[in-house]
Amino acid sequence: MRAKETAERIRSMEVRGAAEIARQAAIALKEEALAYPEMDIQGFKLAMNGSKGMLLASRPTAISLWNGVEFVTKGMNDVQELEAAREMIVKNADIFVKRSQDALANIGKMGAKRLRPGSRVMTHCNSKAAIAAIVEAHRQGKVKEAIATESRPWRQGILTANDLSEAGVPTTLIVDSAVRHLMKDIDAVFVGADTICSNGVLINKIGTSQLALMAHEARVPFYVCAETFKFSPKTMSGDMVEIEERDATEIIKPGEVPSSVRIFNPVFDATPPEYIDSIITEIGVVPPYAAYEIIVSEFGQGSIFME
Amino acid sequence: MRAKETAERIRSMEVRGAAEIARQAAIALKEEALAYPEMDIQGFKLAMNGSKGMLLASRPTAISLWNGVEFVTKGMNDVQELEAAREMIVKNADIFVKRSQDALANIGKMGAKRLRPGSRVMTHCNSKAAIAAIVEAHRQGKVKEAIATESRPWRQGILTANDLSEAGVPTTLIVDSAVRHLMKDIDAVFVGADTICSNGVLINKIGTSQLALMAHEARVPFYVCAETFKFSPKTMSGDMVEIEERDATEIIKPGEVPSSVRIFNPVFDATPPEYIDSIITEIGVVPPYAAYEIIVSEFGQGSIFME
Amino acid sequence: MRAKETAERIRSMEVRGAAEIARQAAIALKEEALAYPEMDIQGFKLAMNGSKGMLLASRPTAISLWNGVEFVTKGMNDVQELEAAREMIVKNADIFVKRSQDALANIGKMGAKRLRPGSRVMTHCNSKAAIAAIVEAHRQGKVKEAIATESRPWRQGILTANDLSEAGVPTTLIVDSAVRHLMKDIDAVFVGADTICSNGVLINKIGTSQLALMAHEARVPFYVCAETFKFSPKTMSGDMVEIEERDATEIIKPGEVPSSVRIFNPVFDATPPEYIDSIITEIGVVPPYAAYEIIVSEFGQGSIFME
Amino acid sequence: MRAKETAERIRSMEVRGAAEIARQAAIALKEEALAYPEMDIQGFKLAMNGSKGMLLASRPTAISLWNGVEFVTKGMNDVQELEAAREMIVKNADIFVKRSQDALANIGKMGAKRLRPGSRVMTHCNSKAAIAAIVEAHRQGKVKEAIATESRPWRQGILTANDLSEAGVPTTLIVDSAVRHLMKDIDAVFVGADTICSNGVLINKIGTSQLALMAHEARVPFYVCAETFKFSPKTMSGDMVEIEERDATEIIKPGEVPSSVRIFNPVFDATPPEYIDSIITEIGVVPPYAAYEIIVSEFGQGSIFME
Amino acid sequence: MRAKETAERIRSMEVRGAAEIARQAAIALKEEALAYPEMDIQGFKLAMNGSKGMLLASRPTAISLWNGVEFVTKGMNDVQELEAAREMIVKNADIFVKRSQDALANIGKMGAKRLRPGSRVMTHCNSKAAIAAIVEAHRQGKVKEAIATESRPWRQGILTANDLSEAGVPTTLIVDSAVRHLMKDIDAVFVGADTICSNGVLINKIGTSQLALMAHEARVPFYVCAETFKFSPKTMSGDMVEIEERDATEIIKPGEVPSSVRIFNPVFDATPPEYIDSIITEIGVVPPYAAYEIIVSEFGQGSIFME
Amino acid sequence: MRAKETAERIRSMEVRGAAEIARQAAIALKEEALAYPEMDIQGFKLAMNGSKGMLLASRPTAISLWNGVEFVTKGMNDVQELEAAREMIVKNADIFVKRSQDALANIGKMGAKRLRPGSRVMTHCNSKAAIAAIVEAHRQGKVKEAIATESRPWRQGILTANDLSEAGVPTTLIVDSAVRHLMKDIDAVFVGADTICSNGVLINKIGTSQLALMAHEARVPFYVCAETFKFSPKTMSGDMVEIEERDATEIIKPGEVPSSVRIFNPVFDATPPEYIDSIITEIGVVPPYAAYEIIVSEFGQGSIFME
Repeated sequence: MRAKETAERIRSMEVRGAAEIARQAAIALKEEALAYPEMDIQGFKLAMNGSKGMLLASRPTAISLWNGVEFVTKGMNDVQELEAAREMIVKNADIFVKRSQDALANIGKMGAKRLRPGSRVMTHCNSKAAIAAIVEAHRQGKVKEAIATESRPWRQGILTANDLSEAGVPTTLIVDSAVRHLMKDIDAVFVGADTICSNGVLINKIGTSQLALMAHEARVPFYVCAETFKFSPKTMSGDMVEIEERDATEIIKPGEVPSSVRIFNPVFDATPPEYIDSIITEIGVVPPYAAYEIIVSEFGQGSIFME
Repeated sequence: MRAKETAERIRSMEVRGAAEIARQAAIALKEEALAYPEMDIQGFKLAMNGSKGMLLASRPTAISLWNGVEFVTKGMNDVQELEAAREMIVKNADIFVKRSQDALANIGKMGAKRLRPGSRVMTHCNSKAAIAAIVEAHRQGKVKEAIATESRPWRQGILTANDLSEAGVPTTLIVDSAVRHLMKDIDAVFVGADTICSNGVLINKIGTSQLALMAHEARVPFYVCAETFKFSPKTMSGDMVEIEERDATEIIKPGEVPSSVRIFNPVFDATPPEYIDSIITEIGVVPPYAAYEIIVSEFGQGSIFME
Repeated sequence: MRAKETAERIRSMEVRGAAEIARQAAIALKEEALAYPEMDIQGFKLAMNGSKGMLLASRPTAISLWNGVEFVTKGMNDVQELEAAREMIVKNADIFVKRSQDALANIGKMGAKRLRPGSRVMTHCNSKAAIAAIVEAHRQGKVKEAIATESRPWRQGILTANDLSEAGVPTTLIVDSAVRHLMKDIDAVFVGADTICSNGVLINKIGTSQLALMAHEARVPFYVCAETFKFSPKTMSGDMVEIEERDATEIIKPGEVPSSVRIFNPVFDATPPEYIDSIITEIGVVPPYAAYEIIVSEFGQGSIFME
Repeated sequence: MRAKETAERIRSMEVRGAAEIARQAAIALKEEALAYPEMDIQGFKLAMNGSKGMLLASRPTAISLWNGVEFVTKGMNDVQELEAAREMIVKNADIFVKRSQDALANIGKMGAKRLRPGSRVMTHCNSKAAIAAIVEAHRQGKVKEAIATESRPWRQGILTANDLSEAGVPTTLIVDSAVRHLMKDIDAVFVGADTICSNGVLINKIGTSQLALMAHEARVPFYVCAETFKFSPKTMSGDMVEIEERDATEIIKPGEVPSSVRIFNPVFDATPPEYIDSIITEIGVVPPYAAYEIIVSEFGQGSIFME
Repeated sequence: MRAKETAERIRSMEVRGAAEIARQAAIALKEEALAYPEMDIQGFKLAMNGSKGMLLASRPTAISLWNGVEFVTKGMNDVQELEAAREMIVKNADIFVKRSQDALANIGKMGAKRLRPGSRVMTHCNSKAAIAAIVEAHRQGKVKEAIATESRPWRQGILTANDLSEAGVPTTLIVDSAVRHLMKDIDAVFVGADTICSNGVLINKIGTSQLALMAHEARVPFYVCAETFKFSPKTMSGDMVEIEERDATEIIKPGEVPSSVRIFNPVFDATPPEYIDSIITEIGVVPPYAAYEIIVSEFGQGSIFME
Repeated sequence: MRAKETAERIRSMEVRGAAEIARQAAIALKEEALAYPEMDIQGFKLAMNGSKGMLLASRPTAISLWNGVEFVTKGMNDVQELEAAREMIVKNADIFVKRSQDALANIGKMGAKRLRPGSRVMTHCNSKAAIAAIVEAHRQGKVKEAIATESRPWRQGILTANDLSEAGVPTTLIVDSAVRHLMKDIDAVFVGADTICSNGVLINKIGTSQLALMAHEARVPFYVCAETFKFSPKTMSGDMVEIEERDATEIIKPGEVPSSVRIFNPVFDATPPEYIDSIITEIGVVPPYAAYEIIVSEFGQGSIFME
């Protein structure tokens, strides 16, 4: 009952992080497939679908989990032989895990190639993938300075400044209002992604769309660093990504403003594809408008209209 | 020795605030003019120029002081009769003081006229003139909601939220990164001004130029509320307004980031005139491109090349 | 001789409407395939190609007919066995008919998801697919007001206002010149499609490209609602869609202008993809730039260079 | 009592048309000034102000009337001698009348100079000044074709097509939706003006701002033909021009749509100055951003804050 | 040892030109495949890979060579039978050669379809594909005038003017600085391609990106004429195309400027996809954003990360 | 008969250069005024107008001559006393000559103030005023590198590279096609002016408008260095500046292209004011939209409609 256990560990937060959740689910499905006795294909499919459902239910809002599970079982229904189906699932799971493990390193390598020596780069919030690209580029002697935005209200820019600084990258911290003032002297912007929609829209930390607009205004390339599991098949059926609002206490301390003042604290915003130069994924550097085909080729057209 | 005393009080910070400084200097010049004995015009001009120099030296960086003094003595050199010169200076000083005193109220009234009932307006930092416009518009029943940006690092948005809230305006506070996310639903932006250059460029609190760009992108009118003494004749001779940098401690607390991390903390930024719909001054609503003629008509063409 | 009869009914206008024509042709091909005796594959292919030719000839300018027929026979030439070929055609036809029948409902559902509660939407001309999205969104309580443009010269906006009103949607009618005046307060625009070209250009009712430009200027999302059979493989080989001109009498009554005045009455115009946020099809929400791959995946690369 | 009579004739609509009203008022003031006996200056000023008030009250919404009266009495209060004041008023009135009479011809001449031979020009609604420019340019052999938009709902494009055609200009009529489709092949757009605001915004017939946007998109020069009395001093104190709405019956016939359908029928829209290349007035070709100084130089700074 | 000989002829420059090199390599691989004895599949693959390596090494920087070789051997590793593998290679090679031979003619035909009669077209540098489109369009009676830019420093515009003129096309030559002055009267721009990157960026002769920007500004369609072998799989893994710099003597003669003056002479520049309307390839007219999928479908996903 | 002699020397090309011609004409008028006997004012005015006409006729196309003469006689007709008129003309002439002599130095100083240390600046063609600004800025230690465009066909960039290099400025020369490739790394562009129109349009060496567009695209400030005598009152009456075409031999050598190839060789192009940040004149840094008021204040409103 490997799937059940994994689902439980995901639910209990023992397994955490978008990438790790997806990998563990893929491994669970592989082990379930290997453990299935040599019987009929119908039973196998039923069993696998059961495991799939259990895993999906363990964190329904995690798009990476959904993507991992779909990737592993992709095409299973078209196979008519038990061994072929088992083999397919094992192979899919191995590819998924391997690719996921190598993803950050590959994104870092490909991102670093987008820079020339002496570059000044800017980043927002605290994205592992974006930092990987900057650190790798610095290792290659290409980064003169990295600018991190403070990223209020959580101020993840402090984390980023620490991460970059530890990696030896000359780092500057600015407030979020100073982005446009500096943009003219920046050579590239690297940000991460929460979700990439089928029409190429990027959902990411609040403030990302401002950076993109300002980069666009100043002819500065704007790159999104994102593993393919960030692409959301759900948006193909028109779902809008809900922009979560969080608590006022993240922005003000008690008594700073009268209680009649409303605090509006959205977590994400939406960046239109026309402000994005490329999305750097572990399978290649792609334009934002290729989101649709990446979703189709990764998860299958059939992933729409399942409800 | 009225000018000397006023100069002293300005130097010692007893007199403060851009508008108050300018008004006190104007009054001092008027009193000097009235006190001058009935003698020759040459002596009068020398005396007035002496007072002028003393006052200017008391706070050399205050553009409002410079403007007040120039306004009061404007045209004096072309007059050949003592009484005519004295009368001109008194009249100029009275106009200047009156206009300055009424400026905020007039700007508020004219700003309020730019709105339709049910409007949502945004403001940045803490500008008396911009707040005057919003409060007056609210009094007229036109403002559904005012959005104040936090305005890191000093967080003057807290002050603004308090000011607006006390005036009964329904107020919302957001972080600086959330501007673009909301802009689509905003009906107008009102900001203040530190300085307006001869080519229509606005120098104001860091982050202002971002708001202007985002308003422009979303076809939202962007208004600058500024007394005419904010227009800078110095920029007519090509001077660039120096963007002051301030201390790192305004942004981070000790130990938050390694000491190798540079903190870049500019106070102002520059907004190009193409993103400004109108400047609302106490003498009318003008396009930013009229800055040149306002400077010439207020301070005279002769105000250039004085060094 | 099912294909012959259907072709006749299409030619005689007994069967009408882009979607219905395509479905009837698909059904005819399926029935021909089922009726073919158990003989050699060569004969089968010849027979099917004959039926195909007959159907295509019945309405040569209908892109939907062309697309339906190509979809059903797609891949037939690569199959070497009669039963496999027959089965493939039956399956293709069933998919095509089902998808076509569900298309409007699916587009409606996906379109409705693009809106938030309290939205004001605008539409142009009289598009079944765009209306489906608005009505479904209204059913979900998301539409505060729908604005229909008059759409001179045929004034299909009158039809649209009636359709929306009957469905209970609060509806406003405006003249075509009032679009920009209102655009600032609109939350989304939904239009239909006559044809979508391989490079993402939309061909639709005259005036559509103006709406798109004005939506773009005001940062309002612009959605095209279009079944996949609106995508035109013909434009892959570079045909410019001919913009039909119609009669002067649609615009003026006799005697209104001297006979020397020319009346220019184009039916369609071309909207560039950069002004289109998404195309909402029955198989997903896609960026306009995905048109090329939708054409290839629906009709095959081989559909090019046939002449 | 010349002013009284003229005021009466304006009130009773005996005198009509923006230009004619203003000229008659100017003439009345001149005659009042000439008829005033040789007495003290104070009485003269009181009398003139009385006449001014009477005239202004005869059509309070006519900006041209206001402008004519202000122009004639401009500077009167600064004069201390009766004969000088009388002379000034007579001279101002003569200038105003002469300039007003020649205005259309001069605008036509200056407008025609903006074109090269073989031009295709577009116009909107039915503007005497815009037509004057096109007809004069045609007389000089520069106009290959003039395109008139229908200008729903009143369809003044029919009038324009007749006017141009009678003047021998090869004319084409299009619906308002076809503007963008043709814009690429147009060499210049000429429109009239209802009002020009102090910040350069043009208020004109609904649809004008769409033409301006589309001309801008296609790099086509967009010219406004407007007598100086169209510049509105009132907007300097921030009045937003109220956009009048008119009756539904101008758009639909009874029964065409259910009564629940709202008809929104605004008369004017607002064109931002960034889409206007030049304003062609009888005193020169000026950028829209010069509106402020034209108002100040024509009507005096004192014309602001009168209430 | 057909591959070895061909490699030698490529290395010695006996075989030249991007297209010819690729075709000869494809033919060599086909002949190697045909010549291989009937033995095991492992040996065959080894042999083919050897030939492939030899050919690639003969001109490592030629992207067309790389593409041809990858195209021919695409999918070989998935095949488990010798004859199937041999057949696949032969078929791939035949397709590649045929398509390559017909490419210019097909691009010409499809390009010509983008024009209406009476068109004025502009081109830059000396591109066979772009000229093919213009000449074919002229043959169809659609080209009124072709404008060739001089294309300093090599002045390939002289070649282009000669090519077009010989083909009977009315041709005009301009200096590179005159592009914007003329752009308003141009109906389409056709350029060639050195390389097309996976994110749709075009690398081409210095000056191309200026033309694209200016066409975009004036709403003039900008077409890139490019065989599919110009699409670069290498850029999918993030390589920035190195912009080669060439010698100063191409720009100045000795003594024209002091030796302290630096001559900067870059060969190519980069045009962003947002300024490109379509890429006209031998397999269809595609948006620049389809570059990614063309690379994947032509060369396989596996072509990435090979090092 | 000073005016006659000067007119002769201008006609015979003995006096050359836009600025020198204007200065000599101003001096001639001053001397005529001084030499006029003490007689009636009518005669004086007649005499001065005669001299004025003679001077204007000596080089009818020189806008600087026209401007100098108008400046000196400005306001003369309103004066009723001989001595006052004489004095006014002498004073005007002295101001004009002084300002003209100091113009380049002042423009240089003001231009230099627009730069920060470490700047890279670009210039086009060979403008004395633009070079003055760059050299002065370099003297102040602000210029890291100056880039000169070749400026085909006359290649004045060679002159500029020599001028800058002699002044010790590190200089780089590029072809005109390389502008956009470098623009991203430029801090400011300085160009000269042939003519500035009343609506702010700049007429300057062919290629200038391209630089302006590319600077605008990359958010690089674009400055025009121009003496006030470059502002053209003629354009206030709508005159379009004629773009002169020059000989084909400036572009090609005999035999380079067939004789059927047309060579189009325009000397100037037109840059719209929206791409110009400031015009740096000897009387201040002004926005392009202030052209109208500079013309009115320098030459008087009466300068229009003289024919």
